[in-house]
Amino acid sequence: MRQTILDIAGAAVSAVEPHQAVMRRVSLEGSRLLAGGGDYDLDAFERVVVVGAGKASAPMAVAVEDILGDRIDSGVVVVKDGHAETTRTIEIVEAGHPEPDRRGEAGARKLLDLVKGAGPDALVIALMSGGGSALLPLYPQGVGLDDMRELTRLLLRCGATIGEINTVRKHLSLIQGGRLAQVAGGAGILALLVSDVVGNPLDIIASGPTTADTSTYEDALGVLRKYDISADAPPGPMQRLRRGAAGEIQETPKPGDPALRRVRHVIVADNDASATAAAKAAHAAGFDSQLVTTHMEGEAREVARLLAGVAKDLVFRKRPIPPPACLIFGGETTVTVSGSGKGGRNQEMALAAAIALQGIPNIAVLCLGTDGNDGPTDAAGGLIDGDTIARGEARGMDARSYLADNNSYEFLSAAGDLVVTGPTRTNVNDLALIFSLEG
Amino acid sequence: MRQTILDIAGAAVSAVEPHQAVMRRVSLEGSRLLAGGGDYDLDAFERVVVVGAGKASAPMAVAVEDILGDRIDSGVVVVKDGHAETTRTIEIVEAGHPEPDRRGEAGARKLLDLVKGAGPDALVIALMSGGGSALLPLYPQGVGLDDMRELTRLLLRCGATIGEINTVRKHLSLIQGGRLAQVAGGAGILALLVSDVVGNPLDIIASGPTTADTSTYEDALGVLRKYDISADAPPGPMQRLRRGAAGEIQETPKPGDPALRRVRHVIVADNDASATAAAKAAHAAGFDSQLVTTHMEGEAREVARLLAGVAKDLVFRKRPIPPPACLIFGGETTVTVSGSGKGGRNQEMALAAAIALQGIPNIAVLCLGTDGNDGPTDAAGGLIDGDTIARGEARGMDARSYLADNNSYEFLSAAGDLVVTGPTRTNVNDLALIFSLEG
Repeated sequence: MRQTILDIAGAAVSAVEPHQAVMRRVSLEGSRLLAGGGDYDLDAFERVVVVGAGKASAPMAVAVEDILGDRIDSGVVVVKDGHAETTRTIEIVEAGHPEPDRRGEAGARKLLDLVKGAGPDALVIALMSGGGSALLPLYPQGVGLDDMRELTRLLLRCGATIGEINTVRKHLSLIQGGRLAQVAGGAGILALLVSDVVGNPLDIIASGPTTADTSTYEDALGVLRKYDISADAPPGPMQRLRRGAAGEIQETPKPGDPALRRVRHVIVADNDASATAAAKAAHAAGFDSQLVTTHMEGEAREVARLLAGVAKDLVFRKRPIPPPACLIFGGETTVTVSGSGKGGRNQEMALAAAIALQGIPNIAVLCLGTDGNDGPTDAAGGLIDGDTIARGEARGMDARSYLADNNSYEFLSAAGDLVVTGPTRTNVNDLALIFSLEG
Repeated sequence: MRQTILDIAGAAVSAVEPHQAVMRRVSLEGSRLLAGGGDYDLDAFERVVVVGAGKASAPMAVAVEDILGDRIDSGVVVVKDGHAETTRTIEIVEAGHPEPDRRGEAGARKLLDLVKGAGPDALVIALMSGGGSALLPLYPQGVGLDDMRELTRLLLRCGATIGEINTVRKHLSLIQGGRLAQVAGGAGILALLVSDVVGNPLDIIASGPTTADTSTYEDALGVLRKYDISADAPPGPMQRLRRGAAGEIQETPKPGDPALRRVRHVIVADNDASATAAAKAAHAAGFDSQLVTTHMEGEAREVARLLAGVAKDLVFRKRPIPPPACLIFGGETTVTVSGSGKGGRNQEMALAAAIALQGIPNIAVLCLGTDGNDGPTDAAGGLIDGDTIARGEARGMDARSYLADNNSYEFLSAAGDLVVTGPTRTNVNDLALIFSLEG
């Protein structure tokens, strides 16, 4: 049964493998490039330029080369260390992630230069995926990597929301917040996206280099004022934001901006695709299946308690569908760390679910990061059942103490319930699969 | 639309009105009393004694009188202040709740005396509902109300779980943990229950006066040792527990105990009945409806985030069922209070859901305490939509600040989204109803 469930998970991850995902959504018919409802006559373009950044962007680049071959004139794609693949025309640059570094900065400059020279006769294909923001750390003169690190630290410490932090950062980046589209000189832009953000907001995936930004320089300054950190912020960024607010620097492109008129976004893979594939694979394996949501959010251990409640009805009351059944929840939870243990949001959710489901027969819950990398561990998540807690406690471990210490990795390891897949080279958030098994 | 939703909620609450709930599950055919699969020939019993305690137990007593009339020989039922109803044979005693008092103690003594005298020729009908534990505060000589209050305070302060606290309390009560059945001298016992506990565990509803207790005196002492409070605990309870552990006092009845052989439990109303009625009423009102779980648990604001995620798929992706649709979650969440505001778990959940669903059209979420009393407020819960936050903010209120201060009541009040029903005189936990409306 464990293997059946892992096979279902495998199918869910395979469905969002970036190379195949691009191949499925993009095709070339003669000189016509078809992608997500877009129809580009390549003969009408003088140049095809491919750029991109993100953990999944190397296999996307390979796919675009497989589709377009010699039609590609040039390209540069920045990926995380160890994520490069062999390409023909497109240059792959490896850089630091999650901590941005000089290599990312240099790669971003190359990328920006390519797009700057594009012009109205060019088609720019942008391959964006999770991590794309950190891999393209390019800022105006006077704003350094250290300045941005310091500013982010200040904002995080004072409790700024992720939306507020993005407002500030977008107004300092030369790429994000629509800046990439803005410098493309009216080129056609086809952005292919592997989404690692719940709900697929285009302005958040890789920080939205090719989409409108509704916030302003004044908003960015407002965030710093709100948290009273204007005086502590590094001078370079502050000066830049003030000059922007004074109208000395062009704003990020707003909705309706002409620079965005020729931009098309195509999500080639997302949580929905993975969750849908899980539902299909579960069905093929003999489970009645239902995809409940792809917008799962919340504190991991609390989400787990609710999922455990849903699991109880699935087993005890055979609802909403009769066993053997599989309910699918997709999204991304968060963990508020208070302990010093080892784990990730999926492992923590699995352990919390195991506690809530202790002793219940015919039940299984899989919590999985589709990137194969849950927190700072070598596991992708956990697959628990009603005996998980007993197995761990048989080794002298108290489940609640391990959960309190955010030490889900150690407990699940002892219980034999870790799921280890290795890096999958894609990332479309997480999946939680609840199974009722036949009694 | 608001009224339609409130009408659905009204139907859900009406379905668990205690008088009707008893009437539906219990009937008299000639001399045969039929209840939940049980078939009692009243002519074979010399006496019928009715006892009970809990917030919903007065209307249950009226129903049992309506059914059995003169067949009832005597009875006493302890209810919360203001919850008495007019009865013929059964004495209704009002007492303090949630803080136990002398009137509860006196009522409990009367109740215990009635049952003690029952014997094998008697049928004892026990009417238990939420609050039954606090309303029957009867302890052995040497253990006072103040001792129990102090002991509970100690246990709560050191972080003991509710299960651990119950282990200790059951071994000090003369009624709970199966004690009531134990003193009945082999009487037939028909326990009719309105469940206010998620999952209907018989040993937790009113602290299980007529069911087996799996814990021991030794376990109770173990709890006090675990938290190192044996020395601080009041001497009366400590002495009692030690005498019990030494075998000087009879244990609570364990599973298989002969004293429990003639006990039957019938849940006459529970969250499932209410949630099922909600699904039916929603369907009748034109909504496709699905009951997802009756085991909803977790921190209210985090549960709300997950429910909001489910709501997004219900509206955006029309799944798991197409609009207009209603998904039903039943159970009971918790609130970890860190602010100083006014609210309850349902109001807090409603406000957190409103934040997560801000700006989304064609959506509504109702969070409702079926007892009509959510936290220390006059509201039963909240009914929010995508404009709730805008309505509150138009009055200058910042939703996130109000949530952080646990001040859901004030915000929902300003937004016009409180639900006020007044006390419903029943309690089967909470309901969360998610609606997708037609666009």
